[in-house]
Amino acid sequence: MPDTRDHAAPTAETPLAGDDSLRQSLATRFHRTRRRTAELVAPLSPEDMMIQSTAQGAPPKWHLGHTTWLFETHVIEPWLSGYRPMEPLFLHLFAARDDRVGRHLAPGTLALLSRPSAEEVMRYRDHVNGMVLHLLDRVDAHGLADVAARMEIAILHERRHQERLLCDVKHAFWCNPLRPAYEPPPPPDNTTPAPESWIEHPGGPVEIGRDGPAPGLDHETPRHTAVLAPFRLAARPVTCGEYLAFVEDGGYARSACWTADGWAAVRDGGWMAPLYWEWREGAWRIFTLYGLRSLDPAEPVCHVSWYEADAYARWAGRRLPDEAEWEAVASHREAIGNLLGTGNRHPLPGRCQDEGPWQMYGDVWEWTRSAFVPYPGHRRPPDTGWAVNGRFMVNRMVLRGGSCVTPFDVAAPTTRHHLHPEMRTAFAGIRLADDDPSP
Amino acid sequence: MPDTRDHAAPTAETPLAGDDSLRQSLATRFHRTRRRTAELVAPLSPEDMMIQSTAQGAPPKWHLGHTTWLFETHVIEPWLSGYRPMEPLFLHLFAARDDRVGRHLAPGTLALLSRPSAEEVMRYRDHVNGMVLHLLDRVDAHGLADVAARMEIAILHERRHQERLLCDVKHAFWCNPLRPAYEPPPPPDNTTPAPESWIEHPGGPVEIGRDGPAPGLDHETPRHTAVLAPFRLAARPVTCGEYLAFVEDGGYARSACWTADGWAAVRDGGWMAPLYWEWREGAWRIFTLYGLRSLDPAEPVCHVSWYEADAYARWAGRRLPDEAEWEAVASHREAIGNLLGTGNRHPLPGRCQDEGPWQMYGDVWEWTRSAFVPYPGHRRPPDTGWAVNGRFMVNRMVLRGGSCVTPFDVAAPTTRHHLHPEMRTAFAGIRLADDDPSP
Amino acid sequence: MPDTRDHAAPTAETPLAGDDSLRQSLATRFHRTRRRTAELVAPLSPEDMMIQSTAQGAPPKWHLGHTTWLFETHVIEPWLSGYRPMEPLFLHLFAARDDRVGRHLAPGTLALLSRPSAEEVMRYRDHVNGMVLHLLDRVDAHGLADVAARMEIAILHERRHQERLLCDVKHAFWCNPLRPAYEPPPPPDNTTPAPESWIEHPGGPVEIGRDGPAPGLDHETPRHTAVLAPFRLAARPVTCGEYLAFVEDGGYARSACWTADGWAAVRDGGWMAPLYWEWREGAWRIFTLYGLRSLDPAEPVCHVSWYEADAYARWAGRRLPDEAEWEAVASHREAIGNLLGTGNRHPLPGRCQDEGPWQMYGDVWEWTRSAFVPYPGHRRPPDTGWAVNGRFMVNRMVLRGGSCVTPFDVAAPTTRHHLHPEMRTAFAGIRLADDDPSP
Amino acid sequence: MPDTRDHAAPTAETPLAGDDSLRQSLATRFHRTRRRTAELVAPLSPEDMMIQSTAQGAPPKWHLGHTTWLFETHVIEPWLSGYRPMEPLFLHLFAARDDRVGRHLAPGTLALLSRPSAEEVMRYRDHVNGMVLHLLDRVDAHGLADVAARMEIAILHERRHQERLLCDVKHAFWCNPLRPAYEPPPPPDNTTPAPESWIEHPGGPVEIGRDGPAPGLDHETPRHTAVLAPFRLAARPVTCGEYLAFVEDGGYARSACWTADGWAAVRDGGWMAPLYWEWREGAWRIFTLYGLRSLDPAEPVCHVSWYEADAYARWAGRRLPDEAEWEAVASHREAIGNLLGTGNRHPLPGRCQDEGPWQMYGDVWEWTRSAFVPYPGHRRPPDTGWAVNGRFMVNRMVLRGGSCVTPFDVAAPTTRHHLHPEMRTAFAGIRLADDDPSP
Repeated sequence: MPDTRDHAAPTAETPLAGDDSLRQSLATRFHRTRRRTAELVAPLSPEDMMIQSTAQGAPPKWHLGHTTWLFETHVIEPWLSGYRPMEPLFLHLFAARDDRVGRHLAPGTLALLSRPSAEEVMRYRDHVNGMVLHLLDRVDAHGLADVAARMEIAILHERRHQERLLCDVKHAFWCNPLRPAYEPPPPPDNTTPAPESWIEHPGGPVEIGRDGPAPGLDHETPRHTAVLAPFRLAARPVTCGEYLAFVEDGGYARSACWTADGWAAVRDGGWMAPLYWEWREGAWRIFTLYGLRSLDPAEPVCHVSWYEADAYARWAGRRLPDEAEWEAVASHREAIGNLLGTGNRHPLPGRCQDEGPWQMYGDVWEWTRSAFVPYPGHRRPPDTGWAVNGRFMVNRMVLRGGSCVTPFDVAAPTTRHHLHPEMRTAFAGIRLADDDPSP
Repeated sequence: MPDTRDHAAPTAETPLAGDDSLRQSLATRFHRTRRRTAELVAPLSPEDMMIQSTAQGAPPKWHLGHTTWLFETHVIEPWLSGYRPMEPLFLHLFAARDDRVGRHLAPGTLALLSRPSAEEVMRYRDHVNGMVLHLLDRVDAHGLADVAARMEIAILHERRHQERLLCDVKHAFWCNPLRPAYEPPPPPDNTTPAPESWIEHPGGPVEIGRDGPAPGLDHETPRHTAVLAPFRLAARPVTCGEYLAFVEDGGYARSACWTADGWAAVRDGGWMAPLYWEWREGAWRIFTLYGLRSLDPAEPVCHVSWYEADAYARWAGRRLPDEAEWEAVASHREAIGNLLGTGNRHPLPGRCQDEGPWQMYGDVWEWTRSAFVPYPGHRRPPDTGWAVNGRFMVNRMVLRGGSCVTPFDVAAPTTRHHLHPEMRTAFAGIRLADDDPSP
Repeated sequence: MPDTRDHAAPTAETPLAGDDSLRQSLATRFHRTRRRTAELVAPLSPEDMMIQSTAQGAPPKWHLGHTTWLFETHVIEPWLSGYRPMEPLFLHLFAARDDRVGRHLAPGTLALLSRPSAEEVMRYRDHVNGMVLHLLDRVDAHGLADVAARMEIAILHERRHQERLLCDVKHAFWCNPLRPAYEPPPPPDNTTPAPESWIEHPGGPVEIGRDGPAPGLDHETPRHTAVLAPFRLAARPVTCGEYLAFVEDGGYARSACWTADGWAAVRDGGWMAPLYWEWREGAWRIFTLYGLRSLDPAEPVCHVSWYEADAYARWAGRRLPDEAEWEAVASHREAIGNLLGTGNRHPLPGRCQDEGPWQMYGDVWEWTRSAFVPYPGHRRPPDTGWAVNGRFMVNRMVLRGGSCVTPFDVAAPTTRHHLHPEMRTAFAGIRLADDDPSP
Repeated sequence: MPDTRDHAAPTAETPLAGDDSLRQSLATRFHRTRRRTAELVAPLSPEDMMIQSTAQGAPPKWHLGHTTWLFETHVIEPWLSGYRPMEPLFLHLFAARDDRVGRHLAPGTLALLSRPSAEEVMRYRDHVNGMVLHLLDRVDAHGLADVAARMEIAILHERRHQERLLCDVKHAFWCNPLRPAYEPPPPPDNTTPAPESWIEHPGGPVEIGRDGPAPGLDHETPRHTAVLAPFRLAARPVTCGEYLAFVEDGGYARSACWTADGWAAVRDGGWMAPLYWEWREGAWRIFTLYGLRSLDPAEPVCHVSWYEADAYARWAGRRLPDEAEWEAVASHREAIGNLLGTGNRHPLPGRCQDEGPWQMYGDVWEWTRSAFVPYPGHRRPPDTGWAVNGRFMVNRMVLRGGSCVTPFDVAAPTTRHHLHPEMRTAFAGIRLADDDPSP
C-alpha cells in the first residue's frame, strides 16, 4: 500500500543539482507539509480545534500555531531583517513549553484559548507561509544552506506534530460521551493475518544508525557496528486477538508479569486493557478515529504502554527486541506501509502474502527493550537553541517503524522514536523477539 | 437607573386573574428569560462557548444546555406523555452534577465537549422552548398549578445561571493572555462617590424573610421576627480606593486581620489583592468584562472572598452586617439598581445624590457575617427531587443585594444568596456595619 | 457518675478571698492540670509519643511540648525578666502552627521529631513548671491579675489539648494493623438505655451565654436573650443501634439525606459508617481506646461528622438542635457526667433512672445546627497575640456538652465547642430535636 | 583503608570443601551480617527507630523487621515444617511492599508503628536467627544447596538494606530542625585531592559482567564482550569544590545544561544545589551523619541525582561514562575503599598517592550514562517469587563502585546498582568521562 501522495517527495538526503533545485525542492516539501497539516484539521470544527484532554497533549489549534511559530522564530526572524510578527503575543502563546517558562502561561491554559480563533490561526499560518517562501526566494547562495537546514528541521518538526495532533484529537474525542468520529469509517477489512511465524537472524556484527549529517536527527548518528547474538523476530506484530488472550488470562492482575514500575502504573491507573478498549454490553469495543467499533482480533494491538508490551512479552515467554535487532531486520525492507499518507486512521490487519517480515513500517510503532540513550560515539551538535532529541535521553524507551498516523518521511529503518514507558496515546504496539531462533 | 427591560415583568407573587392570565404571564416570563440568556451569549464565538477555567464553573454551552435540561426533565417529561427527547444523551451531558454521579462524566469533561456544537445546543433550546409552550397551552386547569410551579423554579434556575455564565466567562477570559473583552467598554464614568457615611438603626424587633409559598425559595421562609441591637450600616459599599489602602497597609501579610481559614487561603492561594487585580508596569489594573482597565478608586471593590471582606472589616475597625440588619435597612428601599438588565457589566461608582443608603441592590453582592442556616421555624419542602437551597446549608455565608450581573427578578430585600467563603469569582463586595452607632 | 478527682476544683468564676487565695488556687489548678496531662501519657511508650496519623493532629510529645510552650512564652517570658529558655529551639518546635509560618517547619515534620526524646520533653515540662510556680510566688499584687489571666488561658489551653491528645492517639493506634489498646478494657457494661423519649420546651425568650469576663472564652459572651419557638429535644443521644438502622437502610448511598458538601464528603472519603466502625467476619466492630470491640447497640453513636449527624436527623425525620435550644434545656442540669476525670475512655450506655434529659454532659459532644458565629453584641477582646476562638468563626459548627475525654472544667452549659463539619476524630455524637413537640 | 572486619569473608563464589564447610561459612556470614545490622542501629533510640521522611524510605525498625521477614518466609518456612511464626501479623507488617498489596497497609503507615516496639523487633530478630541456625544445622545434604542459595539472597538483601537504612536515617535526621547527628564526628581530614587527571583507555573489546551462577545477581550476567571506542575516565570523582563552581555559575538556572526531565525536576523540586547542602549565614554547609558541617571542597560531591550528574558533565564539557567503560577500568583494581566496614559515614577526600584511578570503590556511587537494561543474552531466572532485579529494568540508570555506606561484599567490579534518575538520598556522586583521550 504505497503512500502515493508523499512517495515522490525527495528526502533530506537527496542530492540536489544546484541552488535553484534546492530552493524548488524545499518549497515543494514545505508546501506539501503545510498543506497536509491543513488537510488533517479539515474534518474538525472550530470547537474541535480547542479540545485538550491530557497535560502532555495540546489542542489542534495550538499544534497549528506552534509549528508555524517555529518557522517564524527559527527560519524567518534570523534571516529577514526588520520582520514584524503578525501578532507579537502569538510568539508567547505558541512557543515551545520550555520557552514559556517564567512567562506564566499556566498549565491548562491552552485549552482556554478561544481567542485567537481557529480562523485567525489559519491566517497566521498563511502569513508565515508567505514569508517563508519570500525568504527562500530572496536569500542569497551564501545563506541558503543555513536557511535550508533550518527549514528541514521545521518541516520535520511539523511532521512530528501531525502525528501528535491526531493522537491528541483521538484522546479528546474519546473523553466525549458522544464518542464522535474524526472521519467516517471505511468499509470493513476482512483480512486474516498469517499465524505467528519468525524471521531468523544469525547475529554477528551489523551496521546501524544514520550516516552523515542529519539536521534534527543527530540522535540517530553515528552509524556504528553492533554485535548481535543470534535471535529471531516475529514476522508480524501481535494482534488484538493474541493480546486478548493475555487480558483474559488475568494478565493485568499478575504482578509477576510486570516490572515494578509497570505494576505501579497498572494499579495507579486502574488499567485492565489497552487504552481505548471498552467493555460494553458483554463485548470489547475499541474507540478509533472512526468512532467506536467492535474489537477486530485480526488487527495489530495498539495504544499499549511499554509496560504492557513488556508484560505481554514476558507472559508469552518471549521478549521485546533490541533496537539494533529491529534495524538489522528492517534495513532490508523498503520503508513503506500503512503510514499517514494512505489515509487510513487505524492499523490494518496484516496482508501477509509475500515473505515476511510484514508491517515493519506503518500500522503501529513497535516498542523495543532499548532505552533511549546516545549511540556510541555520539556527539552533541553545537547548541543552536533548537529542541534537540538529546534532551530526552533519559527515562524513555525506543520505538521503531512508524504508525498509521506517521508521515511517510518520518519512517525510515534508522528512525528512533522515543516515549516515556507509561505513554499510551501513541499508536504503539508490540513485535516479539526471542533469543533462541533454532534448537 | 431602572432596569427598563425587565422592570415590568410580573413576579412570582403577582396575583393573576385566571388561568389564561397565568398561562400568558408564564409564557411571557419564560420567553423573556430564554431570550435574555440567548442575548448574553450573543457576543461569544462557538469557541468561546467551550471555555471552562475552574472546577466549579462550566462552559457557556453547558449553561445553555443545562438550563434547558431542567425544563425538559422537570416540566415537560412529567406532563407530556410520550415525549421523546431530541437527543437522549443530552439528558446525561447536561444533567445537574449530582445526577450524573455513577454515570462517569469525569471531572473536566465539560470543557472537552466540542460536540454537540453550539449550534446544536441552540437547536436543542428551540426544541424545548416549543415543547414548553405547547405544554403550557394544552395543560388543563387541573394541572396548571403544578406546571406553573415547575416553570417558576426552572425560570428562577435559568436566571441564576445567567449570572453564573457571566462570572464563568469572565474568569476564563482572564486566564487568556490576550485578556479578551466580552463587550466593548462604555464611555468612562467619572462619578465621585460620597465619603463614608452611616445609616443609623435603633435596633429592636424587625420582621425578615419571605411570606407565603415560594417555589424554590423556601430558604427565605418563614417570615419571622429578629431582635436587633442598635447598629449602623455604611451608606455605600467599600470602594476600590478604600480597599487599596488595606492592600498597601500590608493587609494580606497580617495574620491578625484574618480568620484561621482565611489566612490559610491567603497563603495557599498566594493572594495579594482581590481577584482580577493585576500589577502591571507600576500600577494596579483590573480585568473586567470590558477587558483590562486602570483601577478606578471610585468604584465598589469586587471579587473579594468572604475571608477578604471579613479581614478588611477587621482592619477597618468595623464588622460585616448580619443579614437581618441588612434586610432591616434594605426593606425600605425599592429593589432597583445596577442589575443585569441595565446592560452594565461592571459595578459603577455610587451616584449618591439623594439620601442613603445607596447601591443596596445591584453593583456588588454584599457579604454578611451570617452563616447560611435555616431560618427559625423553617420547614423543608417535600422532596420533589429538585435541587433546593437547603442542600447548601453548611459552610456557606449569606450575601445580599445582587450585583451588576444579577437578573432583576432575583434581587429582592429578602433574597438570600450563599457562597463558600473562599469564592471570588462572583461579583461580591463589602458593606461595613458597626455596633455602636452613636453614644 | 461524679468526676471525683476534678470535682472540687474551683472554676475561674469562683470568688477568691485575696491574693494568697488566688495564688494558691491557681497553683493548685495549674498543678492538677499538668499532672493530669502526665497521667494521660503514662500508658504510652516513648515510641507511642511520636505517632501522628492526620495532618490536623499532632504526636503526643508535641502536645506535651506545645502546652508547655504556651506557659513559657505567654506567662513566664512577659513577667520573668532575664528568663532563659532551657532550649531555644523548642520555642520553634513547639510553637502554635501559625507562629511557625515562614520559619519552615514543613508539614509532616512533627512526626519525625525523634529528638528531643520524650524524656527530654518531660524535663522541659518540669523546668517550666518550676518557673511558673516561682513566678506565681514572686509576682507582686500589681501584676498578679495579669499573670492569673494568662495562666487561666494556658490552663484552659492545656485542658483542651488533653482531649485532642486522646483523640489523636486513638486515630494513630487505629491506623496500626495491630490495633493496640491505650488502656486495658473495663468490665462490660450491660446497661440498657431508655427508649427514645422527648423533653418538651414551650419556647419563648431564654438567656444564653456566659456572663462577665472570661479569659479565652469571649466567644461564649455576652449573655443575651434568644427567642425560641416551641421545640422538643431528645432525652438521650442517638445510640449505635439506632444509627445502625440508618446504615443498614442505605443511608450512606442516598444523596437525598445529605447536604451537598456532605454528599461530596461521603463519596470522596468512601464513608460507609462512622469512623472506627469496621466490618469484620460478618459483624460490625468498633475500635476504641480499649482496642477493637463488638458494636454495642446501647452506647451512644460516636465519631460522626456534622454531615453524618445532619443526614441521620433528616433520615429520622428530625433535625439537629439549635445551640440556644440545647442550652435552654441544659442550663437546668448540673454539668456532671462521663467526662475525662471518670477514667472512662469511651461513651457509656445511658443510665436513665431519673427524669431526663440524660447525658447532656460527657459521653459525646453533640452537634448542633448552629454555625459558629459571634453572639449578638460580641466584642472582640483586645488583641493579645493569644490564639482566640474568634479566629475560627467561619466554616465551623457548634457542638455542646463535652465527651468522655473532655476535662471536667471544660464542660459547662455555656461551653461552645466548634469543629469543621467534616471532622470525625472527635468524640462527637447526635442528639435529635424537633419543631413540633405537641400537636 | 581496608575494611578489616569484612575483608576475610568468603564470597558466594568461594569454593567450599564440603557440606560442613559450607554450613560453617554460611553461619559465619549470616551471623556477621545480622550483627552488623544490629551495630548500625546501636546509636539510635527507640524513637529514632520510627522515623520515616520519604515515601520510598522506611523506618529503621521496619528495615530490621523486613530483612528478618525474608529469612523467615523464604528460608525457614519452606524448609522447617510446622514452623510457627512468633507473631503472625509480622508477616504482614514486614512484607515487601508489593506483597502487601490488597491487604491494606496504607501508605504512610510504617511511620505509625509504635507497636511492635523496637525491643520486640529485636526479639523477633533473635527468634529468627535461632531458627535459621537451627535449620542450617539440621538440613540434610540434599537440601543444603537450596537453603544456601536462599540464605545467600537473604544475606545480600540485608546488606543492601544496611545501606538504605543509613540513607533513610540521614534524610529523616535532616528533616529535624535540631539536625541531630547519628554519630559523633571524627577528627577533621585535611587531605588535599590531586588535581583533575585522566586514565586513558585505548578502547576495543572488553569482557564485562559476572561469570557463572549468582543467586540474586542474575542482572550482572552473563559475562560478555563489549566493544569500546577509545575513551578516558577521570582519575577521581568530582569534588564539592568543583561542583560548587557549577552551582555558582548558575548551573541550576541554565536549562541548556539539563535533560528535559531533569529540568522539570529542578523546577518542580526547587533544586538549587545537591541534597543536604544548606546556605546558612553566608556559607554553604552540608548535613552529614555527623551533623551539619562546613562544606569541604576536597571531598567528593555526594547526594546528586542522575539529572545533576548529567547536567554537571555537560556544563564541564564532558560526559558520564558507560558502565562498560567504568568496568573496563575498575576490573584492574582491588575492590577496596571507603566502604561501610571502615566506619566512616561520609565520603573522604581522595588520597591520591599512587597511580590512579582512585576511589573507584567506596566513598560515592558513580552514576553512569547506561540505562539499567538486561545484558545481551541475559536470561531471566526461573520465577522463585523472590524480588529480583529484573523487575527494575526500566526507568533506572546504572551506578557503579559503592559508597561509604555500602557493605564490603556488595562492592565488586561487576556490581550494577540502579536507581531512578531523580533519586538523591543515596550517597551518589560523579566521575567524568570523555571521548577523546588523546590528541
